[in-house]
Amino acid sequence: MTEVSHRNVKLTDGFWKKRQDIIKDVTIKSVYDRFFDTGRVEAFEMKWKNGDKNMPHVFWDSDIAKWMEGVSLFSEITPENIEKIENLIDLIEAGQDENGYFNIFFTVVEPENRFSKRTEHELYCAGHLMEAAVAYYRTTGRDRFLRIMCRYADHIEQVFKNEKSAAFTTPGHEEIELALVKLYSATGEKRYLELAKFFIDERGNRLEHTYGGFTDGLYDQSFLPVREQKTAEGHCVRACYLYSGMADIARIYDDEELKNACEMIFDDIVKHKMYVTGGIGSTHLGEAFTIPYDLPNRTAYTETCAAISLAFFAHRLQLMEPKAVYAEVIEKVLYNGFLSGLSLDGKSFFYENPLEIIPELRTKDVCMKEQPHIPITERLEVFSCSCCPPNVIRFVAEIGENVYTYDDDTVYVHQFMSGEAEFDGIKISQETEYPLNGKVTIKYEGPAKKLAVRVPSFCEDIENENGYVFFDVDNGMVTEIDFGMPVYCVESNPRVYENCGRYAVMRGPVVYCAEGKDNGKYLRDITLDFSSDIEEIYNEEMSLPVLEMKGFRRKPEEKLYYKKKDDCEEITVKLIPYFAFANRGESEMLVWMQVK
Amino acid sequence: MTEVSHRNVKLTDGFWKKRQDIIKDVTIKSVYDRFFDTGRVEAFEMKWKNGDKNMPHVFWDSDIAKWMEGVSLFSEITPENIEKIENLIDLIEAGQDENGYFNIFFTVVEPENRFSKRTEHELYCAGHLMEAAVAYYRTTGRDRFLRIMCRYADHIEQVFKNEKSAAFTTPGHEEIELALVKLYSATGEKRYLELAKFFIDERGNRLEHTYGGFTDGLYDQSFLPVREQKTAEGHCVRACYLYSGMADIARIYDDEELKNACEMIFDDIVKHKMYVTGGIGSTHLGEAFTIPYDLPNRTAYTETCAAISLAFFAHRLQLMEPKAVYAEVIEKVLYNGFLSGLSLDGKSFFYENPLEIIPELRTKDVCMKEQPHIPITERLEVFSCSCCPPNVIRFVAEIGENVYTYDDDTVYVHQFMSGEAEFDGIKISQETEYPLNGKVTIKYEGPAKKLAVRVPSFCEDIENENGYVFFDVDNGMVTEIDFGMPVYCVESNPRVYENCGRYAVMRGPVVYCAEGKDNGKYLRDITLDFSSDIEEIYNEEMSLPVLEMKGFRRKPEEKLYYKKKDDCEEITVKLIPYFAFANRGESEMLVWMQVK
Repeated sequence: MTEVSHRNVKLTDGFWKKRQDIIKDVTIKSVYDRFFDTGRVEAFEMKWKNGDKNMPHVFWDSDIAKWMEGVSLFSEITPENIEKIENLIDLIEAGQDENGYFNIFFTVVEPENRFSKRTEHELYCAGHLMEAAVAYYRTTGRDRFLRIMCRYADHIEQVFKNEKSAAFTTPGHEEIELALVKLYSATGEKRYLELAKFFIDERGNRLEHTYGGFTDGLYDQSFLPVREQKTAEGHCVRACYLYSGMADIARIYDDEELKNACEMIFDDIVKHKMYVTGGIGSTHLGEAFTIPYDLPNRTAYTETCAAISLAFFAHRLQLMEPKAVYAEVIEKVLYNGFLSGLSLDGKSFFYENPLEIIPELRTKDVCMKEQPHIPITERLEVFSCSCCPPNVIRFVAEIGENVYTYDDDTVYVHQFMSGEAEFDGIKISQETEYPLNGKVTIKYEGPAKKLAVRVPSFCEDIENENGYVFFDVDNGMVTEIDFGMPVYCVESNPRVYENCGRYAVMRGPVVYCAEGKDNGKYLRDITLDFSSDIEEIYNEEMSLPVLEMKGFRRKPEEKLYYKKKDDCEEITVKLIPYFAFANRGESEMLVWMQVK
Repeated sequence: MTEVSHRNVKLTDGFWKKRQDIIKDVTIKSVYDRFFDTGRVEAFEMKWKNGDKNMPHVFWDSDIAKWMEGVSLFSEITPENIEKIENLIDLIEAGQDENGYFNIFFTVVEPENRFSKRTEHELYCAGHLMEAAVAYYRTTGRDRFLRIMCRYADHIEQVFKNEKSAAFTTPGHEEIELALVKLYSATGEKRYLELAKFFIDERGNRLEHTYGGFTDGLYDQSFLPVREQKTAEGHCVRACYLYSGMADIARIYDDEELKNACEMIFDDIVKHKMYVTGGIGSTHLGEAFTIPYDLPNRTAYTETCAAISLAFFAHRLQLMEPKAVYAEVIEKVLYNGFLSGLSLDGKSFFYENPLEIIPELRTKDVCMKEQPHIPITERLEVFSCSCCPPNVIRFVAEIGENVYTYDDDTVYVHQFMSGEAEFDGIKISQETEYPLNGKVTIKYEGPAKKLAVRVPSFCEDIENENGYVFFDVDNGMVTEIDFGMPVYCVESNPRVYENCGRYAVMRGPVVYCAEGKDNGKYLRDITLDFSSDIEEIYNEEMSLPVLEMKGFRRKPEEKLYYKKKDDCEEITVKLIPYFAFANRGESEMLVWMQVK
């Protein structure tokens, strides 16, 4: 299978073009401004001294790097952003050591501790800077940043692989593995690929230091050599960045053992550890996977970055084999657990994306000074740990890479987005309002091939082979297909204790939720009447309809307990797409509802 | 209203006589032995020195004191237990300061800190020792212990009320208030009553030190002067011991303002903060009340001592006014959230009494060394903080005090227990197997009066005035009444988010639950068919029937999410009394179930 880069897929209109425009028009500037306000840009000047305020954090390099990458992943960069990026590159060049090393924290705060604190994101920051350099080079052709990062990569190779002089052997936060693969693909320098493989091969051969509260090995996926790992464990973003790197190496080296490990781990996530939104991470403790079927909704961690990282992983598996489950998971992430991380106006973000909000429970422990951790209820423009906002930029910028793959015989259409793609002598375009409706018109120009179009799992009317329907196409042929866009209820495995007796409403790939703003408080008490007519009312800002249907809620009671009477009143329930929750101030929110 | 002491109410057979026998035959010895093993008895020798193992804990005095009280509350004490108690009194006498002070921790560990550490249970221990001394005196007539504790009370009066020389003005853990009332009633010395009132009047006039993590004032009910408090707040046992003392003082001083505060607080508990089992305490953080309607089942704290303390509070309110809600709450506690604290064999205990157990979720945070707090799943014979076991002994020993109250015109029958009572020229006896069935035969001997018999709220066939049915009785009259003993479903207020769509099964006053031992795993997925026949199968050990009925559970699935199909299989569901859960090893357990 061959990848079709997002650079070859131009979105022309529809759902995702609109989001890309918001990112370009609003988000990029807003994220930069907040990073500027919080000292992240200034930190690159390396002027901080002991005693100064605003000490650079160990992961600030990566925040800015992801912003630089995100901007650079679009086909055009505004002059203003070119200037910002060039200024940053100036600072990086000036701050780089003669030996190639670059890291703000370990230059101005703890220069004596370079490559000795495994947990402190040094290689993680290096990885993100490499990704940024690659993206900037590919869009602009300017290679100064790329050369800077190659020098740093050379230094890392020297220290970790050749001299083995660092105090640890594998990164405490994975990321550099997949970044080195990109550096290799941009430069053709195989040493970078081999360094990525080296970090992957070394992982789990020995226990290395992690944060105090974490059982050695699980938190950072070092509990076994990676080829022997069968389950998704530990910190979700760390995990899926690693798994993405593993999948890259498995594909490029044709490493069956590594591919098997990737498949088993992905299977574990999809069958046991993923929310219906595509979110992952059931607990804030370690921002981690827990045990199978433990998917609490109100305390879900489900970090925006974790959803993105799961899509990265699925995307790389898809490059090896066109199983529909990969595209299904990517679609789940795109329309739900990822997109909820961004406000409709493009300015603010969720780090955590719970599936239920009851505002008053955030401060329920009235006699305690400090409340236990519960996700916040309104998006913010910046966080102290602000990894998600720039990750959103880059993920939307390169969203097109998820649409197509191909091999000698077949062009696969995995996602449905209006746009034009060109690759390998083929031109292919889609016209669609998906997921507003299920109609997709695909125009193919190129040599005779098979066209494999994914049939979304909600579509039960189109016969398919393992999730794809195949057409013979020749130059100029137009294929029209209509998946429909049904509203339906989903149940979860009986072992998911939180959801027993409850159902999620979906419309096509989009999970819906009820909000207090529309439905008042005590949403868990509402029962939907799914036999009633469901009205769809188009909402411009959401690009999708809001749903209205009949429902019931029990009448208010003074007593706390009483003999079962289920004294209900009929109500109209309004559901909105999950990704659009919390855009109107603090409010209750619920995905898993009672259904009659 | 006049109290009828448990000393005037002799249980002759039935449910509670059996429990009293288990306490006398098994529990008393077992608790003493565990206290002996853990150094609690030896600690009274005051030989511990810095560097020794087994440092006496600040609340060990109270553990032993409650055991002494529990033993002494029975009408007969075995010679063996008399010897143990006399030995302990010897040690207390020897350890008492010339000025009357007695406390193990503040004699052998921190003698320099007497009456300076408000949080460290000094007056709490004093209170429990006073209660023990009163009970021992009342049963044996021996007044040595009583005199010792009077000397201590005199010293406390001197330090706190007269000199005001202590570093704090009110106890960090209330208890001594109600104890001083008992000391007053045993000695007739009004100064003790006034000292109780002093501590109550002083509370909340100023902020005093509490543990670091707690917002000043709420945790220890010092956020307002007690007469201005309207809600139940903070640590539940502290709270209800205080409220009990407040109710005592309100009654004895005829203090309307204080009575109103007690009633409003009780109302807040019963309408907003009490589990269907009569348990209180929604969080382990501060072992505390939280906000209204926050009643999570799996993480319920619901300490055994807290249930007991709620019954103490209700009992004292009942002495002021015969509202049925007081007896209803006491009954709820007795048959459910209190009794679950004791194993069927009388040997082991729960400190926490959750309404749901899913064993694997106790260790779900696989990548963490330390798991977050979740209640244990099997009872233990002793805890490091072992307040509950001896509290169980004394509560069962004096259970008879909840049965009757009377005034000039009327004798009230609040609880149903086979036995004979004598008070104020009246003899009254009950014959009943309650709650095995609802038949109660009451024989009255004495002057013509009204007999007010509480009609349990599950009985809907007997006309009553505010929960009591009134009979005119004369000497020798026998009243027969049958409340029935229906099996029924209870729903909770729609605001109780955890229980929406779920129901508790009750049989009379007894809450039932499903256990994994009988029904396999994934209990939350079971739906009871309440229209089917319910079979009652008598269980000797529980003194009650187990229930069998038809139900459904969804068939096992491999997928995590799928279109709603509710593919169910019919099963037989077995329910046991909630109080009997976890007597067969670790297992899932659930109270709030789905019902069709």
